[in-house]
Amino acid sequence: MKRTEKVSTAVIRRLPRYYRYLSELQRQGTVRISSNALGKAMGLTASQIRQDLFCFGEFGQQGYGYRVDRLRDEVAEIMGINAGNTVALLGVGNLGRALMENFRFSAYGFTLKVAFDVDEAIVGTSVGGVPVYHIDEMEQYLKDYEITVGVITVPKSAVCTIADRLVETGIRGIWNFTNVELAYPEKDVVVESVHFSNSLLALSYMIKQSERTEQNETESI
Amino acid sequence: MKRTEKVSTAVIRRLPRYYRYLSELQRQGTVRISSNALGKAMGLTASQIRQDLFCFGEFGQQGYGYRVDRLRDEVAEIMGINAGNTVALLGVGNLGRALMENFRFSAYGFTLKVAFDVDEAIVGTSVGGVPVYHIDEMEQYLKDYEITVGVITVPKSAVCTIADRLVETGIRGIWNFTNVELAYPEKDVVVESVHFSNSLLALSYMIKQSERTEQNETESI
Repeated sequence: MKRTEKVSTAVIRRLPRYYRYLSELQRQGTVRISSNALGKAMGLTASQIRQDLFCFGEFGQQGYGYRVDRLRDEVAEIMGINAGNTVALLGVGNLGRALMENFRFSAYGFTLKVAFDVDEAIVGTSVGGVPVYHIDEMEQYLKDYEITVGVITVPKSAVCTIADRLVETGIRGIWNFTNVELAYPEKDVVVESVHFSNSLLALSYMIKQSERTEQNETESI
Repeated sequence: MKRTEKVSTAVIRRLPRYYRYLSELQRQGTVRISSNALGKAMGLTASQIRQDLFCFGEFGQQGYGYRVDRLRDEVAEIMGINAGNTVALLGVGNLGRALMENFRFSAYGFTLKVAFDVDEAIVGTSVGGVPVYHIDEMEQYLKDYEITVGVITVPKSAVCTIADRLVETGIRGIWNFTNVELAYPEKDVVVESVHFSNSLLALSYMIKQSERTEQNETESI
Protein backbone atom coordinates (compact mmCIF):
# COMPACT_ATOMS: atom_id res chain seq x y z
CA MET A 1 0.00 0.00 0.00
CA LYS A 2 1.53 3.33 -1.02
CA ARG A 3 1.00 5.62 1.86
CA THR A 4 1.04 9.40 2.22
CA GLU A 5 4.64 10.18 1.40
CA LYS A 6 3.43 13.62 0.45
CA VAL A 7 -0.18 14.39 1.25
CA SER A 8 -1.28 18.01 0.69
CA THR A 9 -2.16 20.26 3.61
CA ALA A 10 -5.74 20.54 2.38
CA VAL A 11 -6.15 16.75 2.52
CA ILE A 12 -4.59 16.61 5.98
CA ARG A 13 -7.06 19.25 7.16
CA ARG A 14 -9.87 16.99 5.91
CA LEU A 15 -8.54 13.83 7.58
CA PRO A 16 -10.20 14.47 10.96
CA ARG A 17 -13.55 14.87 9.22
CA TYR A 18 -13.05 11.63 7.30
CA TYR A 19 -12.20 9.94 10.56
CA ARG A 20 -15.28 11.29 12.33
CA TYR A 21 -17.66 10.39 9.48
CA LEU A 22 -16.21 6.92 9.02
CA SER A 23 -16.38 6.25 12.77
CA GLU A 24 -20.00 7.33 12.75
CA LEU A 25 -20.76 5.08 9.76
CA GLN A 26 -19.06 2.15 11.51
CA ARG A 27 -21.12 2.76 14.65
CA GLN A 28 -24.24 2.64 12.48
CA GLY A 29 -23.13 -0.69 11.06
CA THR A 30 -22.46 0.53 7.52
CA VAL A 31 -20.12 -1.92 5.74
CA ARG A 32 -19.56 -0.17 2.41
CA ILE A 33 -20.02 3.36 1.15
CA SER A 34 -19.79 4.90 -2.29
CA SER A 35 -17.78 8.05 -2.93
CA ASN A 36 -21.07 9.70 -3.87
CA ALA A 37 -22.70 8.93 -0.52
CA LEU A 38 -19.60 9.83 1.50
CA GLY A 39 -19.23 13.06 -0.43
CA LYS A 40 -22.83 13.99 0.17
CA ALA A 41 -22.49 13.41 3.92
CA MET A 42 -19.29 15.46 4.08
CA GLY A 43 -20.22 18.23 1.68
CA LEU A 44 -17.54 17.26 -0.86
CA THR A 45 -17.86 16.13 -4.45
CA ALA A 46 -17.47 12.42 -5.28
CA SER A 47 -14.41 13.20 -7.40
CA GLN A 48 -12.79 15.07 -4.51
CA ILE A 49 -13.41 12.07 -2.26
CA ARG A 50 -11.87 9.72 -4.84
CA GLN A 51 -8.87 12.02 -5.21
CA ASP A 52 -8.34 12.29 -1.43
CA LEU A 53 -8.64 8.57 -0.84
CA PHE A 54 -6.29 7.88 -3.71
CA CYS A 55 -3.70 9.89 -1.74
CA PHE A 56 -4.13 7.49 1.19
CA GLY A 57 -3.52 4.54 -1.11
CA GLU A 58 -7.13 3.34 -0.82
CA PHE A 59 -8.84 2.72 -4.15
CA GLY A 60 -12.26 1.29 -3.49
CA GLN A 61 -13.84 -1.10 -5.93
CA GLN A 62 -15.72 0.06 -9.01
CA GLY A 63 -19.43 -0.31 -8.29
CA TYR A 64 -18.94 -1.52 -4.72
CA GLY A 65 -17.56 1.59 -3.02
CA TYR A 66 -15.21 1.64 -0.05
CA ARG A 67 -15.03 -0.73 2.90
CA VAL A 68 -15.84 1.53 5.88
CA ASP A 69 -13.79 -0.38 8.47
CA ARG A 70 -10.66 -0.66 6.33
CA LEU A 71 -10.84 2.97 5.26
CA ARG A 72 -11.30 4.11 8.86
CA ASP A 73 -8.34 2.00 10.01
CA GLU A 74 -6.24 3.41 7.20
CA VAL A 75 -7.12 7.01 8.14
CA ALA A 76 -6.47 6.22 11.82
CA GLU A 77 -3.08 4.78 10.92
CA ILE A 78 -2.11 7.81 8.82
CA MET A 79 -3.18 10.17 11.58
CA GLY A 80 -1.32 8.27 14.28
CA ILE A 81 -4.48 7.66 16.28
CA ASN A 82 -3.18 4.31 17.47
CA ALA A 83 0.22 5.70 18.44
CA GLY A 84 -0.63 5.60 22.14
CA ASN A 85 0.03 9.24 22.99
CA THR A 86 -0.11 10.05 26.70
CA VAL A 87 -1.17 13.49 27.82
CA ALA A 88 -0.43 15.88 30.67
CA LEU A 89 -2.49 19.05 31.08
CA LEU A 90 -0.88 22.19 32.50
CA GLY A 91 -3.12 24.76 34.13
CA VAL A 92 -6.38 23.56 35.70
CA GLY A 93 -8.32 26.83 35.32
CA ASN A 94 -11.77 27.03 33.73
CA LEU A 95 -10.54 25.96 30.32
CA GLY A 96 -8.29 23.18 31.67
CA ARG A 97 -11.17 21.89 33.75
CA ALA A 98 -13.51 22.00 30.74
CA LEU A 99 -11.10 19.80 28.78
CA MET A 100 -10.54 17.42 31.69
CA GLU A 101 -14.22 16.97 32.45
CA ASN A 102 -15.80 17.14 29.00
CA PHE A 103 -13.32 16.41 26.24
CA ARG A 104 -13.02 12.77 25.18
CA PHE A 105 -9.26 12.45 24.62
CA SER A 106 -9.62 8.67 24.32
CA ALA A 107 -11.88 9.00 21.26
CA TYR A 108 -8.85 10.32 19.40
CA GLY A 109 -6.31 7.84 20.72
CA PHE A 110 -4.92 10.05 23.50
CA THR A 111 -4.84 9.14 27.19
CA LEU A 112 -5.01 12.00 29.67
CA LYS A 113 -2.88 10.79 32.58
CA VAL A 114 -2.10 13.73 34.82
CA ALA A 115 -2.58 17.49 35.33
CA PHE A 116 -0.60 20.23 37.06
CA ASP A 117 -1.42 23.53 38.71
CA VAL A 118 -0.06 25.91 41.33
CA ASP A 119 -3.31 26.40 43.24
CA GLU A 120 -3.01 24.56 46.58
CA ALA A 121 -6.81 24.24 46.68
CA ILE A 122 -6.81 21.80 43.75
CA VAL A 123 -3.33 20.23 43.99
CA GLY A 124 -3.83 16.73 45.41
CA THR A 125 -7.42 16.46 44.15
CA SER A 126 -8.58 14.77 40.99
CA VAL A 127 -10.64 16.33 38.16
CA GLY A 128 -12.57 14.13 35.76
CA GLY A 129 -10.77 11.16 37.31
CA VAL A 130 -7.31 12.60 36.61
CA PRO A 131 -4.89 13.48 39.45
CA VAL A 132 -3.69 17.09 39.82
CA TYR A 133 -0.15 17.63 41.13
CA HIS A 134 1.87 20.75 41.87
CA ILE A 135 3.61 22.14 38.83
CA ASP A 136 6.93 22.10 40.74
CA GLU A 137 6.83 18.30 40.56
CA MET A 138 6.10 18.26 36.84
CA GLU A 139 9.39 16.82 35.57
CA GLN A 140 9.25 13.74 37.80
CA TYR A 141 5.64 12.88 36.95
CA LEU A 142 6.09 13.48 33.21
CA LYS A 143 8.87 10.92 33.34
CA ASP A 144 6.95 8.43 35.51
CA TYR A 145 3.87 8.61 33.27
CA GLU A 146 5.97 8.61 30.07
CA ILE A 147 4.07 11.64 28.78
CA THR A 148 4.35 12.41 25.06
CA VAL A 149 1.98 15.40 24.77
CA GLY A 150 1.48 18.51 26.90
CA VAL A 151 -1.72 20.56 26.83
CA ILE A 152 -1.05 24.17 27.77
CA THR A 153 -3.94 26.01 29.41
CA VAL A 154 -1.94 28.20 31.82
CA PRO A 155 -2.28 32.01 31.93
CA LYS A 156 -0.31 33.97 29.33
CA SER A 157 2.36 35.08 31.81
CA ALA A 158 3.37 31.48 32.59
CA VAL A 159 3.29 30.05 29.06
CA CYS A 160 6.92 30.39 28.00
CA THR A 161 8.47 28.98 31.18
CA ILE A 162 6.06 26.06 31.22
CA ALA A 163 6.49 25.29 27.51
CA ASP A 164 10.28 25.37 27.79
CA ARG A 165 10.22 23.03 30.80
CA LEU A 166 7.89 20.69 28.93
CA VAL A 167 10.15 20.57 25.90
CA GLU A 168 13.19 19.83 28.08
CA THR A 169 11.53 16.65 29.34
CA GLY A 170 11.54 15.24 25.81
CA ILE A 171 7.84 15.34 24.90
CA ARG A 172 6.83 15.06 21.23
CA GLY A 173 3.96 17.49 20.91
CA ILE A 174 2.25 20.51 22.48
CA TRP A 175 -1.46 21.33 22.25
CA ASN A 176 -1.43 25.07 22.83
CA PHE A 177 -4.58 26.89 23.97
CA THR A 178 -2.88 30.21 24.65
CA ASN A 179 -2.47 33.18 22.32
CA VAL A 180 1.32 32.86 22.55
CA GLU A 181 2.98 31.46 19.41
CA LEU A 182 5.25 28.55 20.30
CA ALA A 183 7.74 26.83 18.00
CA TYR A 184 10.52 24.32 18.68
CA PRO A 185 11.80 23.29 15.26
CA GLU A 186 15.29 22.42 16.54
CA LYS A 187 13.88 20.19 19.28
CA ASP A 188 11.62 18.16 17.01
CA VAL A 189 8.58 19.07 19.12
CA VAL A 190 5.45 19.86 17.11
CA VAL A 191 2.94 22.47 18.21
CA GLU A 192 -0.75 22.67 17.35
CA SER A 193 -2.54 25.78 18.57
CA VAL A 194 -6.22 26.42 19.11
CA HIS A 195 -6.44 30.13 18.36
CA PHE A 196 -9.79 31.33 19.64
CA SER A 197 -9.03 34.81 18.33
CA ASN A 198 -8.36 33.64 14.76
CA SER A 199 -11.63 31.76 14.82
CA LEU A 200 -13.61 34.75 16.10
CA LEU A 201 -11.99 37.00 13.49
CA ALA A 202 -12.95 34.49 10.79
CA LEU A 203 -16.55 34.72 12.03
CA SER A 204 -16.33 38.52 11.93
CA TYR A 205 -15.19 38.34 8.31
CA MET A 206 -17.96 35.93 7.32
CA ILE A 207 -20.66 38.13 8.88
CA LYS A 208 -19.23 41.14 7.04
CA GLN A 209 -19.21 39.19 3.77
CA SER A 210 -22.79 38.00 4.19
CA GLU A 211 -23.87 41.61 4.75
CA ARG A 212 -22.00 42.67 1.62
CA THR A 213 -23.75 40.00 -0.41
CA GLU A 214 -27.11 41.14 0.90
CA GLN A 215 -26.34 44.75 0.06
CA ASN A 216 -25.33 43.82 -3.46
CA GLU A 217 -28.52 41.82 -3.90
CA THR A 218 -30.61 44.73 -2.70
CA GLU A 219 -28.75 47.19 -4.92
CA SER A 220 -29.22 45.05 -8.00
CA ILE A 221 -32.99 44.74 -7.50
CA MET B 1 -9.40 51.43 -3.30
CA LYS B 2 -10.33 48.08 -4.84
CA ARG B 3 -11.34 45.88 -2.01
CA THR B 4 -11.61 42.11 -1.60
CA GLU B 5 -14.29 41.28 -4.12
CA LYS B 6 -12.79 37.84 -4.26
CA VAL B 7 -10.09 37.09 -1.72
CA SER B 8 -8.92 33.48 -1.56
CA THR B 9 -9.64 31.32 1.49
CA ALA B 10 -5.91 31.02 2.23
CA VAL B 11 -5.58 34.80 2.43
CA ILE B 12 -8.68 35.04 4.62
CA ARG B 13 -7.15 32.46 6.96
CA ARG B 14 -4.07 34.66 7.24
CA LEU B 15 -6.00 37.89 7.90
CA PRO B 16 -6.27 37.37 11.69
CA ARG B 17 -2.51 36.91 11.88
CA TYR B 18 -1.94 40.09 9.87
CA TYR B 19 -4.27 41.88 12.23
CA ARG B 20 -2.51 40.59 15.34
CA TYR B 21 0.97 41.40 14.03
CA LEU B 22 0.01 44.85 12.82
CA SER B 23 -1.72 45.63 16.12
CA GLU B 24 1.43 44.56 17.97
CA LEU B 25 3.61 46.73 15.70
CA GLN B 26 1.32 49.69 16.26
CA ARG B 27 1.51 49.19 20.03
CA GLN B 28 5.31 49.25 19.72
CA GLY B 29 5.11 52.56 17.84
CA THR B 30 6.28 51.20 14.46
CA VAL B 31 5.18 53.58 11.69
CA ARG B 32 6.33 51.74 8.57
CA ILE B 33 7.31 48.16 7.82
CA SER B 34 8.80 46.50 4.75
CA SER B 35 7.32 43.34 3.27
CA ASN B 36 10.62 41.64 4.16
CA ALA B 37 10.38 42.53 7.86
CA LEU B 38 6.67 41.71 8.07
CA GLY B 39 7.29 38.41 6.29
CA LYS B 40 10.08 37.51 8.65
CA ALA B 41 7.92 38.23 11.72
CA MET B 42 5.04 36.18 10.31
CA GLY B 43 7.02 33.33 8.78
CA LEU B 44 5.96 34.21 5.22
CA THR B 45 8.03 35.23 2.22
CA ALA B 46 8.18 38.88 1.20
CA SER B 47 6.59 38.05 -2.14
CA GLN B 48 3.70 36.26 -0.39
CA ILE B 49 3.16 39.33 1.78
CA ARG B 50 3.13 41.60 -1.28
CA GLN B 51 0.70 39.30 -3.03
CA ASP B 52 -1.66 39.12 -0.03
CA LEU B 53 -1.64 42.87 0.53
CA PHE B 54 -2.23 43.46 -3.15
CA CYS B 55 -5.49 41.52 -2.67
CA PHE B 56 -6.54 44.02 0.00
CA GLY B 57 -5.87 46.91 -2.39
CA GLU B 58 -2.88 48.11 -0.35
CA PHE B 59 0.26 48.61 -2.39
CA GLY B 60 2.94 50.05 -0.15
CA GLN B 61 5.56 52.38 -1.55
CA GLN B 62 8.68 51.10 -3.24
CA GLY B 63 11.56 51.47 -0.76
CA TYR B 64 9.35 52.82 2.06
CA GLY B 65 7.28 49.77 2.91
CA TYR B 66 3.74 49.83 4.32
CA ARG B 67 2.17 52.30 6.72
CA VAL B 68 1.35 50.13 9.78
CA ASP B 69 -1.69 52.13 10.93
CA ARG B 70 -3.31 52.33 7.49
CA LEU B 71 -2.70 48.67 6.77
CA ARG B 72 -4.11 47.65 10.15
CA ASP B 73 -7.22 49.80 9.59
CA GLU B 74 -7.63 48.28 6.15
CA VAL B 75 -7.42 44.72 7.50
CA ALA B 76 -9.82 45.64 10.33
CA GLU B 77 -12.28 47.03 7.81
CA ILE B 78 -12.09 43.94 5.58
CA MET B 79 -12.60 41.67 8.58
CA GLY B 80 -15.54 43.65 9.93
CA ILE B 81 -13.79 44.32 13.23
CA ASN B 82 -15.49 47.71 13.52
CA ALA B 83 -18.91 46.31 12.67
CA GLY B 84 -20.07 46.53 16.31
CA ASN B 85 -21.09 42.91 16.80
CA THR B 86 -22.83 42.20 20.10
CA VAL B 87 -22.51 38.79 21.70
CA ALA B 88 -24.60 36.48 23.86
CA LEU B 89 -23.05 33.34 25.35
CA LEU B 90 -25.18 30.24 25.85
CA GLY B 91 -24.07 27.72 28.46
CA VAL B 92 -22.03 28.98 31.41
CA GLY B 93 -20.18 25.72 32.13
CA ASN B 94 -16.40 25.50 32.50
CA LEU B 95 -15.76 26.47 28.89
CA GLY B 96 -18.35 29.26 28.86
CA ARG B 97 -16.89 30.63 32.08
CA ALA B 98 -13.36 30.46 30.65
CA LEU B 99 -14.45 32.58 27.69
CA MET B 100 -16.38 35.05 29.86
CA GLU B 101 -13.57 35.55 32.35
CA ASN B 102 -10.48 35.28 30.15
CA PHE B 103 -11.24 35.91 26.49
CA ARG B 104 -10.94 39.52 25.34
CA PHE B 105 -13.90 39.79 22.96
CA SER B 106 -13.39 43.56 22.78
CA ALA B 107 -9.90 43.16 21.28
CA TYR B 108 -11.62 41.76 18.16
CA GLY B 109 -14.45 44.28 17.98
CA PHE B 110 -17.06 42.13 19.74
CA THR B 111 -18.97 43.15 22.87
CA LEU B 112 -20.09 40.34 25.18
CA LYS B 113 -23.38 41.63 26.60
CA VAL B 114 -25.19 38.74 28.23
CA ALA B 115 -25.08 35.03 29.02
CA PHE B 116 -27.68 32.32 29.59
CA ASP B 117 -27.84 29.07 31.52
CA VAL B 118 -30.35 26.75 33.18
CA ASP B 119 -28.47 26.34 36.47
CA GLU B 120 -30.39 28.28 39.15
CA ALA B 121 -27.16 28.63 41.14
CA ILE B 122 -25.67 30.98 38.53
CA VAL B 123 -28.79 32.52 36.95
CA GLY B 124 -29.04 36.06 38.35
CA THR B 125 -25.29 36.32 39.05
CA SER B 126 -22.68 37.94 36.84
CA VAL B 127 -19.53 36.30 35.46
CA GLY B 128 -16.63 38.45 34.30
CA GLY B 129 -18.94 41.45 34.63
CA VAL B 130 -21.59 39.96 32.35
CA PRO B 131 -25.10 39.15 33.62
CA VAL B 132 -26.37 35.55 33.44
CA TYR B 133 -30.08 35.02 32.81
CA HIS B 134 -32.22 31.90 32.53
CA ILE B 135 -32.23 30.42 29.07
CA ASP B 136 -36.04 30.50 29.04
CA GLU B 137 -35.83 34.30 28.84
CA MET B 138 -33.34 34.22 25.99
CA GLU B 139 -35.55 35.62 23.21
CA GLN B 140 -36.50 38.77 25.11
CA TYR B 141 -32.95 39.63 26.16
CA LEU B 142 -31.48 38.92 22.72
CA LYS B 143 -33.92 41.48 21.38
CA ASP B 144 -33.31 44.02 24.15
CA TYR B 145 -29.53 43.80 23.78
CA GLU B 146 -29.73 43.70 19.94
CA ILE B 147 -27.49 40.64 19.87
CA THR B 148 -25.88 39.76 16.52
CA VAL B 149 -23.72 36.80 17.54
CA GLY B 150 -24.40 33.74 19.72
CA VAL B 151 -21.60 31.71 21.32
CA ILE B 152 -22.68 28.11 21.90
CA THR B 153 -21.02 26.34 24.81
CA VAL B 154 -23.97 24.20 25.94
CA PRO B 155 -23.75 20.40 26.32
CA LYS B 156 -24.18 18.37 23.14
CA SER B 157 -27.75 17.30 23.97
CA ALA B 158 -28.95 20.92 24.04
CA VAL B 159 -27.11 22.23 20.97
CA CYS B 160 -29.73 21.85 18.25
CA THR B 161 -32.65 23.34 20.19
CA ILE B 162 -30.56 26.28 21.36
CA ALA B 163 -29.08 26.94 17.92
CA ASP B 164 -32.50 26.84 16.27
CA ARG B 165 -33.92 29.27 18.84
CA LEU B 166 -30.94 31.57 18.31
CA VAL B 167 -31.39 31.58 14.55
CA GLU B 168 -35.10 32.37 14.91
CA THR B 169 -34.28 35.61 16.73
CA GLY B 170 -32.50 36.91 13.64
CA ILE B 171 -28.85 36.80 14.72
CA ARG B 172 -26.14 36.98 12.04
CA GLY B 173 -23.52 34.56 13.28
CA ILE B 174 -22.86 31.60 15.57
CA TRP B 175 -19.53 30.80 17.25
CA ASN B 176 -19.89 27.08 17.84
CA PHE B 177 -17.73 25.31 20.44
CA THR B 178 -19.57 22.00 20.27
CA ASN B 179 -18.78 18.97 18.13
CA VAL B 180 -22.17 19.27 16.42
CA GLU B 181 -22.01 20.56 12.85
CA LEU B 182 -24.40 23.47 12.38
CA ALA B 183 -25.39 25.11 9.10
CA TYR B 184 -28.11 27.63 8.23
CA PRO B 185 -27.50 28.56 4.62
CA GLU B 186 -31.13 29.45 3.92
CA LYS B 187 -31.30 31.74 6.97
CA ASP B 188 -28.20 33.74 6.07
CA VAL B 189 -26.63 32.91 9.44
CA VAL B 190 -22.92 32.09 9.29
CA VAL B 191 -21.33 29.51 11.59
CA GLU B 192 -17.71 29.32 12.68
CA SER B 193 -16.79 26.27 14.72
CA VAL B 194 -13.89 25.67 17.07
CA HIS B 195 -13.35 21.93 16.61
CA PHE B 196 -11.09 20.79 19.45
CA SER B 197 -11.11 17.26 18.02
CA ASN B 198 -9.91 18.33 14.56
CA SER B 199 -7.09 20.24 16.20
CA LEU B 200 -6.04 17.30 18.39
CA LEU B 201 -6.14 14.97 15.39
CA ALA B 202 -3.94 17.41 13.46
CA LEU B 203 -1.46 17.25 16.35
CA SER B 204 -1.62 13.44 16.27
CA TYR B 205 -0.79 13.51 12.56
CA MET B 206 2.12 15.91 13.02
CA ILE B 207 3.66 13.79 15.77
CA LYS B 208 3.33 10.72 13.57
CA GLN B 209 4.96 12.58 10.66
CA SER B 210 7.85 13.81 12.79
CA GLU B 211 8.49 10.22 13.92
CA ARG B 212 8.44 9.05 10.30
CA THR B 213 10.99 11.70 9.35
CA GLU B 214 13.25 10.61 12.20
CA GLN B 215 12.97 6.97 11.19
CA ASN B 216 13.85 7.78 7.59
CA GLU B 217 16.85 9.79 8.76
CA THR B 218 18.04 6.92 10.92
CA GLU B 219 17.49 4.41 8.16
CA SER B 220 19.48 6.42 5.65
CA ILE B 221 22.52 6.70 7.93
